[in-house]
Amino acid sequence: MAGSTLGTIWKVTTWGESHGKAIGVVLDGCPAGLKLEEADIQEYLDRRKPGQSKFTTKRQEADQVEILSGVFEGKTTGTPISMVIWNTDQRSRDYGNLMEVYRPGHADFSFDEKYGIRDYRGGGRSSGRETIGRVAAGAVAACFLKSLGITVTAYTRSVGPYEVKAEQFSIKERDNNQLFMPDKETAALACEYLEEMMGKLDSVGGVVECVIDGVPAGIGDPVFDKYDAALAKAVMSIGAVKGFEIGDGFGAARALGSQNNDGFCKGLNKGVEKITNHAGGILGGISDGSQVVFRAAFKPTPSVAQSQKTVTRLGEETEIQIKGRHDPIVVPRAVVVVEAMAALTTADLLLANMASRMDRILTFYGRQTEGEGSLET
Amino acid sequence: MAGSTLGTIWKVTTWGESHGKAIGVVLDGCPAGLKLEEADIQEYLDRRKPGQSKFTTKRQEADQVEILSGVFEGKTTGTPISMVIWNTDQRSRDYGNLMEVYRPGHADFSFDEKYGIRDYRGGGRSSGRETIGRVAAGAVAACFLKSLGITVTAYTRSVGPYEVKAEQFSIKERDNNQLFMPDKETAALACEYLEEMMGKLDSVGGVVECVIDGVPAGIGDPVFDKYDAALAKAVMSIGAVKGFEIGDGFGAARALGSQNNDGFCKGLNKGVEKITNHAGGILGGISDGSQVVFRAAFKPTPSVAQSQKTVTRLGEETEIQIKGRHDPIVVPRAVVVVEAMAALTTADLLLANMASRMDRILTFYGRQTEGEGSLET
Amino acid sequence: MAGSTLGTIWKVTTWGESHGKAIGVVLDGCPAGLKLEEADIQEYLDRRKPGQSKFTTKRQEADQVEILSGVFEGKTTGTPISMVIWNTDQRSRDYGNLMEVYRPGHADFSFDEKYGIRDYRGGGRSSGRETIGRVAAGAVAACFLKSLGITVTAYTRSVGPYEVKAEQFSIKERDNNQLFMPDKETAALACEYLEEMMGKLDSVGGVVECVIDGVPAGIGDPVFDKYDAALAKAVMSIGAVKGFEIGDGFGAARALGSQNNDGFCKGLNKGVEKITNHAGGILGGISDGSQVVFRAAFKPTPSVAQSQKTVTRLGEETEIQIKGRHDPIVVPRAVVVVEAMAALTTADLLLANMASRMDRILTFYGRQTEGEGSLET
Amino acid sequence: MAGSTLGTIWKVTTWGESHGKAIGVVLDGCPAGLKLEEADIQEYLDRRKPGQSKFTTKRQEADQVEILSGVFEGKTTGTPISMVIWNTDQRSRDYGNLMEVYRPGHADFSFDEKYGIRDYRGGGRSSGRETIGRVAAGAVAACFLKSLGITVTAYTRSVGPYEVKAEQFSIKERDNNQLFMPDKETAALACEYLEEMMGKLDSVGGVVECVIDGVPAGIGDPVFDKYDAALAKAVMSIGAVKGFEIGDGFGAARALGSQNNDGFCKGLNKGVEKITNHAGGILGGISDGSQVVFRAAFKPTPSVAQSQKTVTRLGEETEIQIKGRHDPIVVPRAVVVVEAMAALTTADLLLANMASRMDRILTFYGRQTEGEGSLET
Repeated sequence: MAGSTLGTIWKVTTWGESHGKAIGVVLDGCPAGLKLEEADIQEYLDRRKPGQSKFTTKRQEADQVEILSGVFEGKTTGTPISMVIWNTDQRSRDYGNLMEVYRPGHADFSFDEKYGIRDYRGGGRSSGRETIGRVAAGAVAACFLKSLGITVTAYTRSVGPYEVKAEQFSIKERDNNQLFMPDKETAALACEYLEEMMGKLDSVGGVVECVIDGVPAGIGDPVFDKYDAALAKAVMSIGAVKGFEIGDGFGAARALGSQNNDGFCKGLNKGVEKITNHAGGILGGISDGSQVVFRAAFKPTPSVAQSQKTVTRLGEETEIQIKGRHDPIVVPRAVVVVEAMAALTTADLLLANMASRMDRILTFYGRQTEGEGSLET
Repeated sequence: MAGSTLGTIWKVTTWGESHGKAIGVVLDGCPAGLKLEEADIQEYLDRRKPGQSKFTTKRQEADQVEILSGVFEGKTTGTPISMVIWNTDQRSRDYGNLMEVYRPGHADFSFDEKYGIRDYRGGGRSSGRETIGRVAAGAVAACFLKSLGITVTAYTRSVGPYEVKAEQFSIKERDNNQLFMPDKETAALACEYLEEMMGKLDSVGGVVECVIDGVPAGIGDPVFDKYDAALAKAVMSIGAVKGFEIGDGFGAARALGSQNNDGFCKGLNKGVEKITNHAGGILGGISDGSQVVFRAAFKPTPSVAQSQKTVTRLGEETEIQIKGRHDPIVVPRAVVVVEAMAALTTADLLLANMASRMDRILTFYGRQTEGEGSLET
Repeated sequence: MAGSTLGTIWKVTTWGESHGKAIGVVLDGCPAGLKLEEADIQEYLDRRKPGQSKFTTKRQEADQVEILSGVFEGKTTGTPISMVIWNTDQRSRDYGNLMEVYRPGHADFSFDEKYGIRDYRGGGRSSGRETIGRVAAGAVAACFLKSLGITVTAYTRSVGPYEVKAEQFSIKERDNNQLFMPDKETAALACEYLEEMMGKLDSVGGVVECVIDGVPAGIGDPVFDKYDAALAKAVMSIGAVKGFEIGDGFGAARALGSQNNDGFCKGLNKGVEKITNHAGGILGGISDGSQVVFRAAFKPTPSVAQSQKTVTRLGEETEIQIKGRHDPIVVPRAVVVVEAMAALTTADLLLANMASRMDRILTFYGRQTEGEGSLET
Repeated sequence: MAGSTLGTIWKVTTWGESHGKAIGVVLDGCPAGLKLEEADIQEYLDRRKPGQSKFTTKRQEADQVEILSGVFEGKTTGTPISMVIWNTDQRSRDYGNLMEVYRPGHADFSFDEKYGIRDYRGGGRSSGRETIGRVAAGAVAACFLKSLGITVTAYTRSVGPYEVKAEQFSIKERDNNQLFMPDKETAALACEYLEEMMGKLDSVGGVVECVIDGVPAGIGDPVFDKYDAALAKAVMSIGAVKGFEIGDGFGAARALGSQNNDGFCKGLNKGVEKITNHAGGILGGISDGSQVVFRAAFKPTPSVAQSQKTVTRLGEETEIQIKGRHDPIVVPRAVVVVEAMAALTTADLLLANMASRMDRILTFYGRQTEGEGSLET
């Protein structure tokens, strides 16, 4: 079944295989009149581009975006924005031997069970390159949100056992190190750890944290389409993500009600505020006006050069050492992917929310809000 | 916007407020010919019914299900199954004072910001009673899955700091204690802890774990509709859930690739098997034939009788002590809700998967699989 | 698969069988703050209620609506509105003989082929009674549209060969005759014709026309979700409808471009207007600010008492005379069903349209429309 | 809002403007293992290609399809099939004058009202070139259906007043004339008529008829997702279509029940058959195993060179003569577009139908159909 589309109003459809001709995305539902140029998108793609540090694959890809539709004279027109990124450095020969052997931790086996056929070159559709389309569409969402005063900022929260320390946290440091960690000291320790594990032909996991700032209260729906539930799906749909938590997350499961509840107080000029933010900015699935804060757990890169036990497509036992060009850790390049998924989700729910109240709808359509069928408030 | 519907093929729409006339659900997309009677559903509803132990609200509700459509002569007909559960013990007077004061940790404030109007009685639509519709539909999903050899089993994994110990785990114990914990000793300690916290007018969080057994390989889609992403959304949409993880989850973020990868081996008669199951039964978003294992973190019940800082609807600061009949912990009654959400998600993706392969479609429609336009295998 | 839900934002799910316990509908996505009471809905249901004239079935049903959720203190709350109408006069014994014989023109055979099981009593899910849920939800949509200054008015345009004459048209006459025809003289002739055909144990078809007044320009989307395409689906989904046309419809296929094009002129105060309205109010799938006008062709009631050739469920040839209580013509009671479908479709697209333009979104969320990322106009 | 996606399981998203870089489509949900190459698709695109006769625009476009993903070694892989067709002959200068003047019968005005911005070159997104994406995806659907023994055949039924005569009908003639009319004599008369109207700077409408052969009984759903309702939406979403009818269509509205009902009889080897087919192959929204037959009414091409009254974007009255390269009739090139929409709709519902019956699902997943939870039949 079709599973490559996300969103109801702000709707994104990605396509493309790791070693096919190109990777791309169609974004349908972006409102008309948003200033947009390829550079806005390229900035995001450059953040996930390979080959930028010793901790990323050496595959050389410019990952240059080309807008094919939906933008006219520097603005979106309300029609689908089709974006394509051509694959250029496809060393498919590296993968010839993977045609018949299932890589542990990869989708090779489950994909074959589902479809009976598979583009085995570089993971095909299950490759990390699929996220290029997400990032391109997410960059447009970020532009859209920015015009509404909303920013989405993700960063590496931990690498293996090394976690950012609250007292050392500085978001300005994020882009100063190869790990996108907003803590200089911890980043240095994490880099050492990573090099050590690379030397052992091993790979490392980590956690990405994301903060969405400026979301007005009221975004998200109270039942199945809760804001946090939608974020969970979007983020868990990134390959390698094994866990998601909002606010205090799993920590809340060990807390008491008196500790975990966020009291309300009178804010400066914008009315009600929360005294603390254990909830992570969402109450009952609906944003409460404070920062939305969530985390995603990434497993270690499954491609390791150590020998691993596996079976062939015919079911015979064998061993495999994975060659090729692989990141020893997924996390740094995934930071921008998490931002993209958060931006896409937020944009969709923000647009959906416009239909929630009669008084606002009547104003939108220029109708009187007094009298028959209207709110009296 | 509409946010009360979940699923694409196996589609569930819940409705109802805590203190309205009734709570209900429409399940559309259940295949025709499934044996079903009200008792099958009642069994699940009884597991979440209030008033069963000292750890649950004393609200007296029979929560008796009535099937209004879609079942004829003991079998489903393929048309929507409408189920209603009448509210009977609505002591709305308890909530009169909540009309104007926002309860910390509840959706009162965010709901008001979104809709400008709110059925404040007992949480209205954001009440835990909304899950009744989920459980009723989930019970049908569980029946459906059972006929396919698939079982869904959840249990309390931890209560505050008390976590089930692997060496003491016994699923048979689950239904022997009020906490639905499959570990007699830990359950006893957790009960003590709970009573202590109740004495302090406080509430407690916990973790529910769920195992789905018998899922064939191939369920789920490789991009946005990954099986684990769909589970995450479904489970995070339960009120009070703050985190979700599959397999080793957040633990995987601290592991090495060589530890976290699951090697493959030759299984007995069903071909390929995984040697370990760190992945929790899903690879690249698609089931791999092993057990699907996930966990959900529940925050402590936000309704505590301690005094809490808050504001009124008009923005004035005040204090609140929440009276009424509240569970000191959400987890035990949420166990069956988690099962329901897992069953609903699995049923939907299982049906979606039928459309994935030409060879199987040709067989389904009784066509030759040889010749033009077909698979050669 | 699930096929009982219509709409994306204004989302309607109907359920119920002709001779089951009840018929109902869940409307999710109605904005909060709309004044609504059961009487608003009952008014619409009464227009399709049986037993009101000699041209409708004698089945006695009060078809009294009961709102179970989503309305609080006389206003919608933004949560699902669940409505139920209990079946009371189910003379199922009339249908015992239909269990094994396929009625020509009915869904008996095709339903059995699809599901292998069927609630044969009175057509089950394929009965005209299924439209009760549509009308109930459509009545809410009509209330919503009315508050925005939009009205939906349908009427009988033709009965067999008798068609309303333009020069005799008077909408005030519509409710003065049993056929809901806005032309006194033609209605009288049509009544005679109908009685004659009833005497011959036969049934009659006809055409319903619908006018939607007050729709602002800009509703509908340019590609698949064109306003007219959405209306076509909604209206064609009414049982017995065999054709749909917008504006000049099939007549346009015989016209020349110079005749069929509607020129533009300067309107009074609201800017651009069309000189004529051959298009029926929609250009390129998007409303143009003039009246939306469409027609639906209804086939004759398939239940006729004449002897008809058919087969049994086991495939043996036989003859059937359909007893029971049947309308000799579907059209008069279908008038309000057409209005309902038009209202539901319009409400959904009207809400969807709110997300189409940056400048309006920025205003909606109270942001500056000047500067970075905004429209300059 | 997003309106460029059609289908639930077989899901199509088109993108592109008439004078943008390219036109394209993403087809998600095509099952894995279908033999497919670009030539299969090109064959369909060539049938709608401009410049093939004196009755089509002289714009020179090769309309060559390029598959960018989803096909590997000659077979579909179950992942999204992205197809692009580059625009090459964009004489946008022809349209410079259309920036400020609304063309009658076009979407210029309504589009501006909706989006406030418009790619005015050649109609932009509302151009007939948008159908290229539909045809490309429809060609894949046709391949899929063919492998299941289902064929979709459309043809020109009438051109202005000239309608194919039943006694002269020969499908083999369809491709022998420039109008794709399966009636040699009528085609000749229609050609004369067209040339005459072209001489008068006018344009002509017509009707396309479509026959779907080989559809098994049981396709489509009984309520909103009726097969005919889905066809109506898909076909009405083609620009220029103003009416849709199934079977006897509007004729049924003038018929009697005794004439319009199709009796059933014993078929040769496949069981039940209908004696006649007034219904057009669909009963109660579900296919009945006979031919599906529908018609679409196309208005005359709105671009005529005669002088027409209109207004400028600023609301001032003016006159316009439309230059450029336009078809004097839409119908011949629309024939393949109608086929495409019918194929897409049928493919989607055919896949959806797989989830309708327990017995078939149990067989599909290799489970016993005896015992607990199964059908006894």
